[in-house]
Amino acid sequence: MSVNRIVGASSDTATKIPVIIDCDPGHDDAIALMLAFGCGRLDVLGVTTVAGNTVGENAYRNALAVLSLIGADVPVARGADAPILRPLYTSRDVHGESGLDGLPVPPGLKGGGLTAVEFLSETLRSSVTKITLVPTGPLTNIAILFLAFPDVKEKIERVVLMGGVAGQGNVTPSAEFNIFADPEAARIVFHSGVPITMIGLDATHKALVYPNEVEEMRRIGRVGAVAAGLMDFYSRAYKARGFEGTPIHDALAVAAVFDEGVVKTQYARVDIETRGEFTAGRTVVDFRGAAGREPNARVAVDVDRDRFMHLLMTAISAL
Amino acid sequence: MSVNRIVGASSDTATKIPVIIDCDPGHDDAIALMLAFGCGRLDVLGVTTVAGNTVGENAYRNALAVLSLIGADVPVARGADAPILRPLYTSRDVHGESGLDGLPVPPGLKGGGLTAVEFLSETLRSSVTKITLVPTGPLTNIAILFLAFPDVKEKIERVVLMGGVAGQGNVTPSAEFNIFADPEAARIVFHSGVPITMIGLDATHKALVYPNEVEEMRRIGRVGAVAAGLMDFYSRAYKARGFEGTPIHDALAVAAVFDEGVVKTQYARVDIETRGEFTAGRTVVDFRGAAGREPNARVAVDVDRDRFMHLLMTAISAL
Amino acid sequence: MSVNRIVGASSDTATKIPVIIDCDPGHDDAIALMLAFGCGRLDVLGVTTVAGNTVGENAYRNALAVLSLIGADVPVARGADAPILRPLYTSRDVHGESGLDGLPVPPGLKGGGLTAVEFLSETLRSSVTKITLVPTGPLTNIAILFLAFPDVKEKIERVVLMGGVAGQGNVTPSAEFNIFADPEAARIVFHSGVPITMIGLDATHKALVYPNEVEEMRRIGRVGAVAAGLMDFYSRAYKARGFEGTPIHDALAVAAVFDEGVVKTQYARVDIETRGEFTAGRTVVDFRGAAGREPNARVAVDVDRDRFMHLLMTAISAL
Amino acid sequence: MSVNRIVGASSDTATKIPVIIDCDPGHDDAIALMLAFGCGRLDVLGVTTVAGNTVGENAYRNALAVLSLIGADVPVARGADAPILRPLYTSRDVHGESGLDGLPVPPGLKGGGLTAVEFLSETLRSSVTKITLVPTGPLTNIAILFLAFPDVKEKIERVVLMGGVAGQGNVTPSAEFNIFADPEAARIVFHSGVPITMIGLDATHKALVYPNEVEEMRRIGRVGAVAAGLMDFYSRAYKARGFEGTPIHDALAVAAVFDEGVVKTQYARVDIETRGEFTAGRTVVDFRGAAGREPNARVAVDVDRDRFMHLLMTAISAL
Repeated sequence: MSVNRIVGASSDTATKIPVIIDCDPGHDDAIALMLAFGCGRLDVLGVTTVAGNTVGENAYRNALAVLSLIGADVPVARGADAPILRPLYTSRDVHGESGLDGLPVPPGLKGGGLTAVEFLSETLRSSVTKITLVPTGPLTNIAILFLAFPDVKEKIERVVLMGGVAGQGNVTPSAEFNIFADPEAARIVFHSGVPITMIGLDATHKALVYPNEVEEMRRIGRVGAVAAGLMDFYSRAYKARGFEGTPIHDALAVAAVFDEGVVKTQYARVDIETRGEFTAGRTVVDFRGAAGREPNARVAVDVDRDRFMHLLMTAISAL
Repeated sequence: MSVNRIVGASSDTATKIPVIIDCDPGHDDAIALMLAFGCGRLDVLGVTTVAGNTVGENAYRNALAVLSLIGADVPVARGADAPILRPLYTSRDVHGESGLDGLPVPPGLKGGGLTAVEFLSETLRSSVTKITLVPTGPLTNIAILFLAFPDVKEKIERVVLMGGVAGQGNVTPSAEFNIFADPEAARIVFHSGVPITMIGLDATHKALVYPNEVEEMRRIGRVGAVAAGLMDFYSRAYKARGFEGTPIHDALAVAAVFDEGVVKTQYARVDIETRGEFTAGRTVVDFRGAAGREPNARVAVDVDRDRFMHLLMTAISAL
Repeated sequence: MSVNRIVGASSDTATKIPVIIDCDPGHDDAIALMLAFGCGRLDVLGVTTVAGNTVGENAYRNALAVLSLIGADVPVARGADAPILRPLYTSRDVHGESGLDGLPVPPGLKGGGLTAVEFLSETLRSSVTKITLVPTGPLTNIAILFLAFPDVKEKIERVVLMGGVAGQGNVTPSAEFNIFADPEAARIVFHSGVPITMIGLDATHKALVYPNEVEEMRRIGRVGAVAAGLMDFYSRAYKARGFEGTPIHDALAVAAVFDEGVVKTQYARVDIETRGEFTAGRTVVDFRGAAGREPNARVAVDVDRDRFMHLLMTAISAL
Repeated sequence: MSVNRIVGASSDTATKIPVIIDCDPGHDDAIALMLAFGCGRLDVLGVTTVAGNTVGENAYRNALAVLSLIGADVPVARGADAPILRPLYTSRDVHGESGLDGLPVPPGLKGGGLTAVEFLSETLRSSVTKITLVPTGPLTNIAILFLAFPDVKEKIERVVLMGGVAGQGNVTPSAEFNIFADPEAARIVFHSGVPITMIGLDATHKALVYPNEVEEMRRIGRVGAVAAGLMDFYSRAYKARGFEGTPIHDALAVAAVFDEGVVKTQYARVDIETRGEFTAGRTVVDFRGAAGREPNARVAVDVDRDRFMHLLMTAISAL
C-alpha cells in the first residue's frame, strides 16, 4: 500500500492530481518531496532520479532515503547519469559531497528494477488519465523519454518544472542550474509541444524561507526537525551569497502543481540557448512575442510567499 | 521462418554474423539490403528505419517494399521522424520524391508493432551473443537507443556505419549527408565507447559502379533488373555532379561487416562538429592523434573496388 | 570659430569636458547632439558617424544636418559602413527610411576630408588632455580605432556609451540594438582596458519623455519645434510597442558624461556574447562577480528622470 | 639605397613586382625573406611584422635580424601583438623560444617609427602602381588595414598569402596555423573583395626540402650556411612528426608571387570557420561551388617542387 494514499489523506485519490516527480536530491528536492507527499493533493505515482545536484548514484540513494524517512512507499527508478551531450556538472558547493549533506541515510535501501525511462514510459502508456510530470532537476530523463517514446506525450497533462530564469541566473549571469546542466535536454522538452509551466528563479528567488521560519519548521510534526536540519545545511550557501532567506526552488514547482494561486505566470515564448560562449543554458524568454513565434510556456514571474509557506508548513506537519 | 535463412543460404546460421540494419531507403540503402540478404554471410535479425534521405513514413514504406521484393521476412520497426535537436533535412534531389523513386511499391505492406528503439533494445537485451549494428542513415535511432537503454551497449559487437568523411563532404565541403543530418546523434554514438567502424566518403567515393556494370546487373537473377532500375534513377544525380560512376555508399558498409578485405581502415580519433557556421556535421578525423586523445573509430580510407563489385553482383544473383 | 564655444556658453572651455561623439543619427542621436551642444558643459571636439540606425551615408548626412540646424561648427568625419564581421543591420522600423525621418535636410552640406578613424586617432594623439568618447551607435569605429591605433587608448579619459542591457533587450529578448548590430566591436571595446560607462536599456527605458513634455519641448527656443518634430516621428514606434513615454537612449549617455547624478551605476564585469543562437549581442552583466573576473564597466542601473528632463529642456532652450 | 635594388639585381626595378611582406619570423619566414630579396624579381617596399609564430616583439626583432644579415635596407614596421578577438597563440614547439632559434641576432637593430598599419596605408595610398601583399603570418595586420583604411584595397594588386588548407590541418585536424591563430582576421581578408591567392598546406606540404638539399644549401653563397642552420633547427619538429623533408611554407608564397609555374591553383569559394568546437580556423574550400557562392580565391593544390627548389637555391646564392 503506497504511503501517498495514507499521509495527508484529507481527500481521496479520485480528486488528487496524478504526478511523477523527477528529481536530483538535493536539499530543495528533499523538501519538495515532503511537500508532495504531505500536501494531500497529489497522487505521486513514482519518483525518478537524475544526475544533477549530485551524481546519479547519490541522487537515487538520496531519493530513497527521503522517501524512507517520510514513509512514502512508491516506485523509485534511477535515470540518466549524465546529460545528453555534455559532461556532468554538479553543485557540490551548495548540496555537499553526498548531494544531501545533513540527512542521515538509513541502511538497506532498495529500489525497483526499472530505469527511469522505462518506468515513465510504462506508467504513462498504461495510464487512463493524463499525468503531470514534475521535474526538479536537469531535464535529461524527460528529454530521453520524449525521444525514445514520443507517443507518451499525449498522456502528459503538463510538465511543471523547476528551472530557468528570465532575469539573472545563478550558475552564470545568464543561466539557472537545471537548464545550464543540460541545455540540449531542456530544448527538447521546451520544443516538445507538451504544455510547460516554468518555475524559474524569477519566482523561486522570492520564495525565501527565513531563519525564524526554519526554527518554526524544526518544531513541527515527525519530520520537521529533519527538514530544518536540511535547511540548516542548505542555507549556508545562500547566506554566503548575501541572501537573507533561502529559496526552496523545487518545492515551489510542486506547490504550483496543485495550487494555482501560489505563483503568477505569464504566457511566453521560451527558447533554450545551447551554444553561447557566456550564455549556454539561458532560457531566452520573449514576453513580447516580438519575433512572432508561438508562446510555449507559462513562466512564473511572481510568488505569493505567505501562501507558499503555509502550504509547506502544513504539508510537513502532516507527514 | 525468416527469409534471411533461406536466400543466399550457402552457410548455416551458426557461422553468420548477427546484424540489425538501421536505414533510410534511399537507393543505396535498397542495394545495401539486397547485399545483406543475398550475401549469405549475415543473420539479419531485423531492419529499423529512420528519417534521412526521405521522411520517416517513406523510409519505413520503402524498407518494407524492398524486403517484400527480395522476399526477406524479418521484423521491420519504424524509428525517429526527426533528428534529436534539428529540423529534418532530406535529400530529395538525389533520391526523388518518394525517397526511392524508380521502385514499384507493392500494395498491402505491413510492419510490426514495435518502434525501432523498442525493437533494438528488446533484441539486444534478449540476445545471448553480441550483435553488429549497421546504420546506413542518420544516427538518430542509435543515439536514442544509447540514451534510453545504455545497458544494451555491452550487447553490441560493433557499429559499422555509413557516414562521415575525412576529406571533402557531399552536402557541404565539410560534411557528409548522414552526419550532417543529425550531428548530435553522431556525437552520442561516436562518444559511446562502442567500437565504431566508419565507412565514409573517403572510401565510398571510390566504390563506384560504372554504367556497364549497371547493365550487367540488369541481367542477373530475379531482382537484378529492379536493382539496375534503382541505379538508373540514382545515377543521374551523381552524373550531374561529374561522377563517372555511382557510389553505393550504404552497400559498402554492409560489405565491410562480413568482408575484412573490402576496405582498408585506419584507427583514429573522430570528433563530431555540432556548432560550426560552415562545418556542422563534420567528422573531424585525427589520424595523427596529435591532441593526445584516444582513437575511437576505425576509419575506412580505401576500398578494393573489384572485390566490392564481386560481392555485390554475387549477392544480387543469389536473391 | 566653433559653435560649441558660443551656444550655452555659461562656462569657459577650460572647465568643459572634451568629448568626441560617435553616432548614427537616428532620432535619439539627434537629441543627444542637441544636448551635447546646448548643455554648455562639453567641449565637443568633433562628431564621427557610423552605420547603425541607418546606412553609413545617411548617418553622415543626418549628423551634418543636425549640426547645421543647431549651428555647431565642428569637424564631422564619416566612419564604418558595416560592422567588423557581420552584414549591416539597421532599424528602419524605428528611424524611418532616411534614419532621421521628420527632419528637413538643408542643401549643400559638406564634411571634412578625414575618415572617422583618422580624425579620432589624430585628435587623440595630438591632444594634451584626455578625451572622453561618447559612442551612441554600434561600436564599430571605436573598435577599429583600438585595433589600428592601440596607443591612443591612453589618451582616452573614458568611454561613455549608449548600449547593452542587463535585463530584457529590444532587438531580441537578449540584446540591445547597438551591441546586437556589432557584437565583435563591442567585445573589443569592453575588453580594451579603457574605462567604460555603459548606459543601457536598464537605465534608458526609465528615461522616458512623455507626450506632454514633447509639447513643452515644441515651444522652447529656436530648435524646440524641430526636436519635438523628431520626437513625434520617433515616438510612434515606442507607442506601438506599448511604451507610455519615449526613451531618448543616446541623450542619456551624453547627460551621464557631465552629470554624475543623472544615472546610478554599479561596477560589474560585462562580457559580450558573440556566438549564441538566440543571444548574440547580449551584454552579459555579472553584478555578483561570481566567476572571479575583474569588473570592467560601470553599468547604469537607474536614472533620475526629472533631472534628465531638466538637463534636456535647458540645453534645447540654450540652442 | 635599398639593398633589394642591389642583390640579385638581374632585372631593373621597372619590371619587378612591388610587394610588401607581412611576416612573423619564424624560420620559414626567414627563408621567405631570403627568397624575396635574392630572387631579383620583387621590389620589396617594406616588411611588416605580426605576432604569430612568436610574440610581437620577437617577430619584429627577428625580421630586423634577418634583413640585417642579408643586407636588405627596407623599412620595417611592427604591427599587431595579438589577434583581433582572441588571445595570442604561438608555435614555440616549432620555432623555439625566440621564434627563430638558430639565428644569431646582431646588436643595435633599429626599425622605423611607423606602425605596420600606418606603413601599409601610407605606402599604398601614395603608390601610383598597385602593390602585392604577401602575408606569411596570421592575417591580423591586413584585416586591421582593411577595417581602418578600406580605400587602400583598390591599390592592392592581390594578396598572396601563406595559410589555410583544404585537406588536413597542422594545428588541429581542421586548421592550419596562420588561420587558426586569427580566424576573424582571415574572414575579413577573404571577404574583402581583394584578389586572394591562398598558398596552403595542400601545396606547402609537398614543397619539402630534403636533408641532402639542406647540405647543399649550407655550401652556397654568403648566407647559405645561416639558412641551413635555420633549416637544421626547424627540421627537427617536422622530423618528429614523421615528415621526410621539411616544408618551407612561407617561401612558397613568395615564389608564387613571381613565378606562375611553381604552384597549380584552382579557383574556389573559401569561407573561414570562426565558431566550431573542433574546426575553428578551418578554411572551408568549396571547389565544386555547390552552394552557388562566388569563388573568392585561387587555392594552391599542387606544387612543382623541383622548380621551387631551383628558385630557392638560386636566390640564396645571389644574396
